[in-house]
Amino acid sequence: MTTNRPLDALDQAKGKRIIIRLKNGDQIAGVLKAFDLHINVWLEDAEQINSEKKIKLGTVIVRGDNILFASPE
Amino acid sequence: MTTNRPLDALDQAKGKRIIIRLKNGDQIAGVLKAFDLHINVWLEDAEQINSEKKIKLGTVIVRGDNILFASPE
Amino acid sequence: MTTNRPLDALDQAKGKRIIIRLKNGDQIAGVLKAFDLHINVWLEDAEQINSEKKIKLGTVIVRGDNILFASPE
Amino acid sequence: MTTNRPLDALDQAKGKRIIIRLKNGDQIAGVLKAFDLHINVWLEDAEQINSEKKIKLGTVIVRGDNILFASPE
Amino acid sequence: MTTNRPLDALDQAKGKRIIIRLKNGDQIAGVLKAFDLHINVWLEDAEQINSEKKIKLGTVIVRGDNILFASPE
Amino acid sequence: MTTNRPLDALDQAKGKRIIIRLKNGDQIAGVLKAFDLHINVWLEDAEQINSEKKIKLGTVIVRGDNILFASPE
Amino acid sequence: MTTNRPLDALDQAKGKRIIIRLKNGDQIAGVLKAFDLHINVWLEDAEQINSEKKIKLGTVIVRGDNILFASPE
Repeated sequence: MTTNRPLDALDQAKGKRIIIRLKNGDQIAGVLKAFDLHINVWLEDAEQINSEKKIKLGTVIVRGDNILFASPE
Repeated sequence: MTTNRPLDALDQAKGKRIIIRLKNGDQIAGVLKAFDLHINVWLEDAEQINSEKKIKLGTVIVRGDNILFASPE
Repeated sequence: MTTNRPLDALDQAKGKRIIIRLKNGDQIAGVLKAFDLHINVWLEDAEQINSEKKIKLGTVIVRGDNILFASPE
Repeated sequence: MTTNRPLDALDQAKGKRIIIRLKNGDQIAGVLKAFDLHINVWLEDAEQINSEKKIKLGTVIVRGDNILFASPE
Repeated sequence: MTTNRPLDALDQAKGKRIIIRLKNGDQIAGVLKAFDLHINVWLEDAEQINSEKKIKLGTVIVRGDNILFASPE
Repeated sequence: MTTNRPLDALDQAKGKRIIIRLKNGDQIAGVLKAFDLHINVWLEDAEQINSEKKIKLGTVIVRGDNILFASPE
Repeated sequence: MTTNRPLDALDQAKGKRIIIRLKNGDQIAGVLKAFDLHINVWLEDAEQINSEKKIKLGTVIVRGDNILFASPE
């Protein structure tokens, strides 16, 4: 078993599209530009997706403590 | 009595399927790839299970502060 | 007065059955295998007890920040 | 004015009965055996008191972040 | 402008009566005996005041994270 | 671009009247006497303003974790 | 892949107008003057935007733990 760390999965997703599920139930999708140990996340070409609609956000920095999980598309 | 630590139980579950119970009541099941001291968890072949349905998630990084408990299947 | 620390009470309960009361009102009972300073807890032969039913959990790692109190049976 | 610290009041209460008021409105009373800087508290002969009833708990370790206040009887 | 720190205001209130407003809307009044950097507070001759009644508490240690603000009478 | 820090804005407001918006929706206005890195704030001649009324508070120390934002008048 | 950090996106937005989405659903827009590692943010010419109205705030320091995400306009 190699000594992977969970944030290695995010590292592999840099430059690719990921989906962020927020604690409030909404989702934000975008191209992962950068992240840090708090799971603060910088997305480009981002859009917010809730149960009713999609909203274009462009560049967005999501504060990590709002995140439930992140998943590469 | 040996000096086990609670995260040793997760270490033994690496490469196996575990169930994550979230504070919001949902569950996420998947193969445990990696975790850290915050109990941030990297799962492969994950799916989210709530009271109504299962949703395929694939690769997912769950932020540890959302977790109620983790249990090997 | 000896210089006891509160987690000494958990240390004495290692290998014995304890009950964990969660902040959400549920309880988890099981044999205490290990714990740490965050009160992350590893239980064996665990079962979750809420107002309506008991659910077998087997091995479980409870994240400490969900815990209201722990009590040896 | 002496340089008292607030936890000195708990130190004076060791071996005596105290009441813990929880953030959720319940109370736990018991003999204070030990506490730490997080105000994690070890009580003996404890009982939980809510608006409707008293429940015998025996030995209990209350995680400090649930506590509103503590008061010697 | 002198280099005051906000807790200096509490230091000046030692031995005097202060009112603690809690996040849950209740108030606790008492004579300030000691406090620390977390704003854990030790009060003597304390009483809890909510919208309906006053309750005598005597000696009380309020965990700082419950406090909205403190105010000397 | 100079290397300003966000709390420099509070430093410039010392001795002047500021408005504190709380997470619970209320506001507290007063003369800023001191603050620290947690944004604990010491106000003089303070008053609490909610949707229904103003309440004189005099000297008040607001615990920083209750604050949504601060704004010089 | 360069070693960007998520707060670099905020650094590039200094002196420009950004939108802060708060956890409570409101938004605050303004010219970004400064920020720190907690994502405490200093805005000039700020206004608060909720579902019903816009409110002029002028200079404002938003405590970082209220922020859901930040986005350059």
